Amino acid sequence: MTDLPRTPRTTPRRKPDRVSHDAQAIAAVLDEALVAHVGFVEDGLPMVVPANAWRVGEFLHFHLAPRGRLAQVMASGAQLCVTVTLVDGLVLARSAMHHSMNYRSVMLFGVAEAVEAPEEKARVLTALVDHVVPGRSALVRSPDDRELAVTAVFRLRIAEGTMKARSGPPMDRADDLDRPVAAGVVPLTLARGELV
Amino acid sequence: MTDLPRTPRTTPRRKPDRVSHDAQAIAAVLDEALVAHVGFVEDGLPMVVPANAWRVGEFLHFHLAPRGRLAQVMASGAQLCVTVTLVDGLVLARSAMHHSMNYRSVMLFGVAEAVEAPEEKARVLTALVDHVVPGRSALVRSPDDRELAVTAVFRLRIAEGTMKARSGPPMDRADDLDRPVAAGVVPLTLARGELV
Repeated sequence: MTDLPRTPRTTPRRKPDRVSHDAQAIAAVLDEALVAHVGFVEDGLPMVVPANAWRVGEFLHFHLAPRGRLAQVMASGAQLCVTVTLVDGLVLARSAMHHSMNYRSVMLFGVAEAVEAPEEKARVLTALVDHVVPGRSALVRSPDDRELAVTAVFRLRIAEGTMKARSGPPMDRADDLDRPVAAGVVPLTLARGELV
Repeated sequence: MTDLPRTPRTTPRRKPDRVSHDAQAIAAVLDEALVAHVGFVEDGLPMVVPANAWRVGEFLHFHLAPRGRLAQVMASGAQLCVTVTLVDGLVLARSAMHHSMNYRSVMLFGVAEAVEAPEEKARVLTALVDHVVPGRSALVRSPDDRELAVTAVFRLRIAEGTMKARSGPPMDRADDLDRPVAAGVVPLTLARGELV
């Protein structure tokens, strides 16, 4: 999860993590994730706030308290950087140095737009329930007019998204390979327990 | 995961998520997490980059490629906002509106400082290996001088951290309670599979 070099390198180094603009791979990350980290600038300072986020079509959606800080920021037309990260595995090498993580991270830039029409709000909020538990929206009470009125919904276009990822086994140095320690990848998944 | 209201409210609403400065609770979040989202401002625009992060004592640590973007940002003394979020559960209500998530999120602000001394670098990188898999640092090869030289380590003081969290069951409206649908909390944990 190191970042991209900005300057050309002459010395050998680890292969940089893979960058992609593949729309399907980006959609898969957004569809698996529950939380996005929303970055904005406030009084010249960075702010990073977690928020539920879910994809419907070509947009990533957010639901917010209308008078809350993040809704005010989005309504103001502030530039956003929204990052969604999934941790896929622990990469356990034979040297401390070559430990790493397998992950996929999507970064979106842009300005959010408010979803104002009640029927569109209802549609995407229904999609949120089904994003969390497929099929659940048919079982629960749909939002009424008052609930829709007190829920701000914003969306951000996904088109400009960038994905960065690492996958695969550790890359040990040849002279470490004989070391008597188990190495490889420990897969990580967000496991759901029983409803309490 | 809605944000704090900035303006006083006169209408009733859901209780805002709990904010805390409890040092032990903040340390627990940092110790459970694998990834932080690092926010900074670049050319006036927000950037949010995921990075491995781990706590040693009163500092959250980062290891970076020395010539990478994030290392350059940290070395420049830029103001950072670092947010670490754990998703603890899906809160399934009887109405779409009252669905929520249980989570804990820590936000740190400040300027990172470089960890330069090789012995201190080695100490905290060893702690990273044990953060990922307790006890593993004793089994793997420790970083050599060259590896330490090509790894930038930065740290950010935790003291000013803020935690925001939601926990507990859904808060359904009284007239939804008879609805014939299962409701409650689905616990979420980051599960580790078998080493591949």
